[in-house]
Amino acid sequence: MQAVVFGASGYSGAELLRLLDGHGEIEVVGVSGESTAGRRVGDLYAGLPRAVRELRIRTTEELLGLIVGAELSSVELAFLALPHGVAERLAPQLLRHVSTVVDLSADFRLADPSSYPSHYGREHGEPELLEEAVYGLPELKRSALQGARLIAAAGCYVTAATIGLLPLVERSLVEPDHIIIDAASGISGAGRSLKEENLFVGREANYSVYGLRHHRHVVEMEQNLGVRVIFSPHLLPVSRGILATIYARPSNELKAQLEACGDEKSADALLRELYATRYQNEEFVEVTAVPPDLSSVVYSNLCRVSVVYDVRTNWIIVVSALDNLTKGAAGQAIQCANIALGYLEFEGLPKGGRVP
Amino acid sequence: MQAVVFGASGYSGAELLRLLDGHGEIEVVGVSGESTAGRRVGDLYAGLPRAVRELRIRTTEELLGLIVGAELSSVELAFLALPHGVAERLAPQLLRHVSTVVDLSADFRLADPSSYPSHYGREHGEPELLEEAVYGLPELKRSALQGARLIAAAGCYVTAATIGLLPLVERSLVEPDHIIIDAASGISGAGRSLKEENLFVGREANYSVYGLRHHRHVVEMEQNLGVRVIFSPHLLPVSRGILATIYARPSNELKAQLEACGDEKSADALLRELYATRYQNEEFVEVTAVPPDLSSVVYSNLCRVSVVYDVRTNWIIVVSALDNLTKGAAGQAIQCANIALGYLEFEGLPKGGRVP
Amino acid sequence: MQAVVFGASGYSGAELLRLLDGHGEIEVVGVSGESTAGRRVGDLYAGLPRAVRELRIRTTEELLGLIVGAELSSVELAFLALPHGVAERLAPQLLRHVSTVVDLSADFRLADPSSYPSHYGREHGEPELLEEAVYGLPELKRSALQGARLIAAAGCYVTAATIGLLPLVERSLVEPDHIIIDAASGISGAGRSLKEENLFVGREANYSVYGLRHHRHVVEMEQNLGVRVIFSPHLLPVSRGILATIYARPSNELKAQLEACGDEKSADALLRELYATRYQNEEFVEVTAVPPDLSSVVYSNLCRVSVVYDVRTNWIIVVSALDNLTKGAAGQAIQCANIALGYLEFEGLPKGGRVP
Amino acid sequence: MQAVVFGASGYSGAELLRLLDGHGEIEVVGVSGESTAGRRVGDLYAGLPRAVRELRIRTTEELLGLIVGAELSSVELAFLALPHGVAERLAPQLLRHVSTVVDLSADFRLADPSSYPSHYGREHGEPELLEEAVYGLPELKRSALQGARLIAAAGCYVTAATIGLLPLVERSLVEPDHIIIDAASGISGAGRSLKEENLFVGREANYSVYGLRHHRHVVEMEQNLGVRVIFSPHLLPVSRGILATIYARPSNELKAQLEACGDEKSADALLRELYATRYQNEEFVEVTAVPPDLSSVVYSNLCRVSVVYDVRTNWIIVVSALDNLTKGAAGQAIQCANIALGYLEFEGLPKGGRVP
Repeated sequence: MQAVVFGASGYSGAELLRLLDGHGEIEVVGVSGESTAGRRVGDLYAGLPRAVRELRIRTTEELLGLIVGAELSSVELAFLALPHGVAERLAPQLLRHVSTVVDLSADFRLADPSSYPSHYGREHGEPELLEEAVYGLPELKRSALQGARLIAAAGCYVTAATIGLLPLVERSLVEPDHIIIDAASGISGAGRSLKEENLFVGREANYSVYGLRHHRHVVEMEQNLGVRVIFSPHLLPVSRGILATIYARPSNELKAQLEACGDEKSADALLRELYATRYQNEEFVEVTAVPPDLSSVVYSNLCRVSVVYDVRTNWIIVVSALDNLTKGAAGQAIQCANIALGYLEFEGLPKGGRVP
Repeated sequence: MQAVVFGASGYSGAELLRLLDGHGEIEVVGVSGESTAGRRVGDLYAGLPRAVRELRIRTTEELLGLIVGAELSSVELAFLALPHGVAERLAPQLLRHVSTVVDLSADFRLADPSSYPSHYGREHGEPELLEEAVYGLPELKRSALQGARLIAAAGCYVTAATIGLLPLVERSLVEPDHIIIDAASGISGAGRSLKEENLFVGREANYSVYGLRHHRHVVEMEQNLGVRVIFSPHLLPVSRGILATIYARPSNELKAQLEACGDEKSADALLRELYATRYQNEEFVEVTAVPPDLSSVVYSNLCRVSVVYDVRTNWIIVVSALDNLTKGAAGQAIQCANIALGYLEFEGLPKGGRVP
Repeated sequence: MQAVVFGASGYSGAELLRLLDGHGEIEVVGVSGESTAGRRVGDLYAGLPRAVRELRIRTTEELLGLIVGAELSSVELAFLALPHGVAERLAPQLLRHVSTVVDLSADFRLADPSSYPSHYGREHGEPELLEEAVYGLPELKRSALQGARLIAAAGCYVTAATIGLLPLVERSLVEPDHIIIDAASGISGAGRSLKEENLFVGREANYSVYGLRHHRHVVEMEQNLGVRVIFSPHLLPVSRGILATIYARPSNELKAQLEACGDEKSADALLRELYATRYQNEEFVEVTAVPPDLSSVVYSNLCRVSVVYDVRTNWIIVVSALDNLTKGAAGQAIQCANIALGYLEFEGLPKGGRVP
Repeated sequence: MQAVVFGASGYSGAELLRLLDGHGEIEVVGVSGESTAGRRVGDLYAGLPRAVRELRIRTTEELLGLIVGAELSSVELAFLALPHGVAERLAPQLLRHVSTVVDLSADFRLADPSSYPSHYGREHGEPELLEEAVYGLPELKRSALQGARLIAAAGCYVTAATIGLLPLVERSLVEPDHIIIDAASGISGAGRSLKEENLFVGREANYSVYGLRHHRHVVEMEQNLGVRVIFSPHLLPVSRGILATIYARPSNELKAQLEACGDEKSADALLRELYATRYQNEEFVEVTAVPPDLSSVVYSNLCRVSVVYDVRTNWIIVVSALDNLTKGAAGQAIQCANIALGYLEFEGLPKGGRVP
C-alpha cells in the first residue's frame, strides 16, 4: 500500500520513515516538510537507509496537490506528524482521497471538543471528525481501530502512564485521588525546533523538571484512566526514551489482599500477575519482575512495565518505560495502521531495544 | 591546619582534594587508599591541580602510623572517605591523635545503635563514640557542630531530601504519612568500584530505577525529618548531581491557607516565603522561583530548592538539587569542618555550578 | 541453519545475537560465556528481543560438548567472539563437527605465523589452520570467502582504514611512506571488561589518545594495504562507532592529474569517482560527497567513505566511518558467513544508521 | 579595577563572568548582549555565582553609553566577546574611555590587513588599530603584552596547535611542509547560536569532521608558526575542550639526533626535554609523559602537551589539550589582561581540570 508522511522533517516523521522502510506492506512514496521543503530527506537524516534518503521533501500544499491530482493518486494511507492544529485542517481534505489517516498530534485525541479551548487555546474546527476519530492506543481500543479511517495516535507520556495504570484503574483497585506520575523523557520529545532549551550545550549532563502541574498530557491521561493524576515531567540528557515512575495507593480491598500475602515477594507477585493477565495478548507490552531501564526499550516498539508494593508506606509503585518516538509516536501510529488495515499488528515494528 | 584524607582514591576523596586545594586554612599532607596504594594521586585524577597530584597514596595502616609517629604528628584534622564499616574502626584510634575527624560514611550517622544491624547488617562497634558524634548537616545541626570532635557528614540523597522538606516538617505543615521522594542521581554516587553497572557502555543514554523501597538512606531521612517517606532513587547517565522531586500533602491548616490565597501564584509565593525565611541565613541553600536544574548546582556546594502547590490535586511539589560529591559529600564535610574549627563557613567552597 | 555463538556475553557476541535474530536463514541455538555461565542472555542484555533473551549461557566446554554430543549435533555454523588466543585452540575441535567457523578475534587474521610472537606474544599453535583461514573482509576477499570453512573476520579499525585506502593503494596512487591514520572509536571497542578505563565516570565527556605507535591493528592494516602506516587511535565518549581521518600524499602521477583538474571541486570529483568505481558493487560501502558522521553508520553494517584533495598542502584526506560492533565485528562476521554459505550477502544486516 | 563584558550571553562571555567572579583585582560592573538584552545574566546561566547572576544585560549601545557617560565612567577594562566584525567597530570608541581592551574575536588577530578580505570577506576597517593590537598568546608574546592597550586574544584551536608546535618550529626542527593538525573540539566552540548543528539530538553520541581544508584558523596558525599546516577539525559530543593530535617530520638534524638515541624511550625523552625547557616558566603549560586527556584540562586554564617519536615511520606526534572556553578564550583573555595590567599572571585562573 502506498503511503505519505506529512511532517517528515521532524523527529517523529523521521522515525516513521526509519520504521516503514522495514514494513512489508507499506511503501512511502511522498513526504512533506515546511522549512525543509526542497531538500532530500537524506540531507536531514543521513542515517536513513539509502532508498528513503532520496525522497524529496515537498511543502504540505504540494504533497496534498499530488494526492488530489494524478501523480500520487494511488496513495491510500497518510501519516500526519505535524504541529498541533495543522492536522485538524488537513485531515478533512485528505480523507476525501485516502482511505486511512493516522495523526500523531493531539488534534483528534480529546473526545470532548470543549477540552480544546482550555488546553490548546482554540476551538476545535472539526467536531464531527473528532467524533469519528478513534483514539490510537491498541492496548485500550484495539477493536475500534479495526477499519478506522481517522486515528489519533496516543501521546508518548500518556502511553507510558496509561499502560502503567490500566490494570489497576480498570478494576478500580486504586484510590482515584492519589495518583502521582513522575516521568523523565529524552529531548527528542521537545521536537526539532531551534530553541535554547534544545541546544547540546546546556542539556549535556543536565537534568530538569518542566511543565509542573500544567502539562497538556494530563487531560489525555485522565481521559484514558478515569482518575485524577498529578504529572511531573523531567528532561533527561538523552535523545530518546521515557521512563515513568508511578505511585498509587491500593483500594481498601486490594490493600487487604496485599497485606494478606504475608511478605513483599508474594504481594509483588500478586500485582505482577494482575498485569501479566491484562497484557497476556499484547505483543508490545512486557511485564517484568526487574524494573525496566530506558536502554531495554529505546529503538523498539515495546512498553515494559513492572509493579511492586511497599507495605510499610502503603504505596504501589509502577515503572513503565518506552521509546517516545516509537511506541510513543511513530511505532504506535504504524501499529494502529496495521490494525486498521488488517495487517499483522507487529509488521515493521522492532521488538528489541538498545544492545549493548 | 594540616589534614589527611583517608580514602583519597574514591570519588569523594578526590573531590575533597579538589576542594581543599583552594582552602585557605587547611592543607592536605597525607592521603590513603587501598588498591591504589603506592601510586600518586595524579595517576588516578590527572585533572587535580599540580601540587595535589604529587601526593603519594599510602595504605590506611601506613598513614595512621605516620600520624601516630613523628612524620605527620602535627596533623589535626582527618577526613574519612572510606567504605561503610571501616571508619568505625579507624575513628577511635585517630581521635587519640587528631583534634577533629569528619567521616563521610554512614558509620556514625544513625543516632540509634540498634538501627545498624537492620540496615547495615552488623552491630555498631563503638556505641559510645556514636553518641558523641555530631550529625553533619549544618542546616540542621549548626550549633552542635561548633567544636565537634567527630562529625558524621550527612548523605547525598538525604541532604537533598532533608533540605527540601525541613521547612514543612519542622512546623508540622504536611501530612506525615504521604511523603514521596523521587530522586535521580549521577553515577559517581555508586562509587568508583569495578562493577558491571558502572561501565560506560550500558549507562550511556540509559536511565533506570534501583533500590526501590529498600534504599539505606530512608532510615537517615526519617531520622532527620521525623516523618515516614517512600524513596525511589534513579540513575542518570551523568557523573554528578542529584535532583529530588518531592511530593507532600499539606496539613489541613496549611491547605486552608493555600486555598485562601485564591490563585496558584500566591499559593506558591506563600510556600516560597516559608522556605526563604527558614533558609535566610544559609550560605548554601538557595530558594528559587524556577525549579533548579542539575547544571546549576554541579561542582558547587549549593542546594537549590523550589516549591509549588497544585490546588487541583492537593499536592505540594518540592524540587531540590545538589551535587552529590560536593554538598552531598566532600563539600558538606568541609563545611562541617569549617564550622567545627571556627573558620568561615564558606571557606574553600564553590558557590557556582556549571557554566555554560 | 543452526548456529552457536561462543563468547555471547561480550559486546560483539551480543551484537551477533541482536543481528541474527533478524536473519532469515540462521538460528542461534546455543551460546557460551565464562564468568556469566548459568545466566540467561537477557540478564545481561535486556534490550535483546524476547526469544533471544531466554537463551541460557553455557561454558565454552559445555557448549562444545553439546555440539560434539547429540543435543546440538545439527549445528553447522559457529561464531567465535572470544578473547585473543582462545579461538586458536577451539577452532580445530569445532571444525570436526561444524561446517563453518567464523572467528571475530585476531587469531587467524595474520597470514604470516611469525607475526604472532612479535604482536601477540606467543607462537601460533595452528599454523596449518592459519593457512587455510580466509581473511574476512568481503570488499577484499569476496571470492575466497565463498565456501570458506574458517573465516577470520577483519578488525574494526582495520576495516575502516582498509576500505578508506584500498582504491588508492591497489593502484599505487599514493606515496607508500606517508600514510597517517587518525581514528576515534567508541568505548565498546575496549570490550566489556571491568577496568578503570571503562567506567562511566572518567569517560563521560572525555576524549583521549591511546596506544600511540603501538596498536596491534597496525600489522593487520599493513598486511591488507601493502604500505606503511602510522596509526593513532582515540577514545570517544560514546558506546559505538569508529571514524577515521586518513592522510595520504598522491603519487606524482595522481598529483599531476589532480592539479590538472584546475579547481578543488573537480579534483575531489576525480577522487570520488575512483572510489565510486571501486565500490560500485559493494552493498555496504557508500561513497559520499559530504564526509560521513558517526551517527549515519552506527547500528548499520555500512562503511561510509568520502575523499578530498588539498592542493595547497598536497594531501589527500579520506574520512571513513563504520560501527565497530557491526561492520567492524558482528555484522562483518555475518556478511562473511552469508558469502561462505551462499546466502544473500545482506541477509540480516541493517543498512540504516541512527535516526534521529 | 572595574570591568565590563560585551557579549556576555555567549559561552565565552559566560566563561569570563564565571572566572572573573574569582578574580581578586577585577570586578565586572556591566555586561551587554543583543537578543538577550533586558534579561538578567542568571536567566541564561543559572550556574553562575549569585552576585554575578543579578547583572542585567544591556545592549551594546546602552553599555557603551554608560561608559562614555557618568554611570560607568570609572570602568578601565573591557572584554569583547562579540561576533567577528563587531569588535572592530567598537574598539576605537572604547579605547577613548577605558585603558585596556581585550578582544576575543579574530578582528585584531591577523597582522596583515590584507588577510581579512580573503578569510573574513571584508576589508579591515581599522588598519592602524590593527597595527597597535598585541596578539594575545602569552607563551608567544608575553613582553609585548605588558602595558598593551588593545589585545587580540588567540583562538582556541590556534592556541592548542601553537603551543603544541612552538618548541619545534621556533628552532626549525621539523620539515615545514609536512605538518598535520588533526583536532577535535567540544560543541561550545560553535557558539550559542540556534542552528540545527547545535541541537542535542543529532549531536548526542555523534562525531564528525567539518571545515576540511578551509577552516579560518589556518591562517592564524601559520602566522604564529611560520610553517604551512593542514588542519582537520572534528566535533566531539561534549560541551568543552579541544584535543589536537599533531604530526610533523623531524628535520634531518633532529632525525639524526633521535635515531642516535638508540631506543624509543630516550628519543621521547629528548623531545620532552625540549618542550619542558621551552615552557619551564609557563604557569599554564604542562609537558606530560602520558598524553593528556580532555578531562584533565577542561574548566582549567591549562594547555597540556606531550610529544613522542615514531622511529619506524619517522613522524613526531604531539598531543595538545586545552579547554576551548578557558585557555582557548576567556581564560586566555584574563591571562593577557593580567599581564597587561601588571597583576599576577595566574590571578583568577584555575589550574585544575575535571575531577572525577
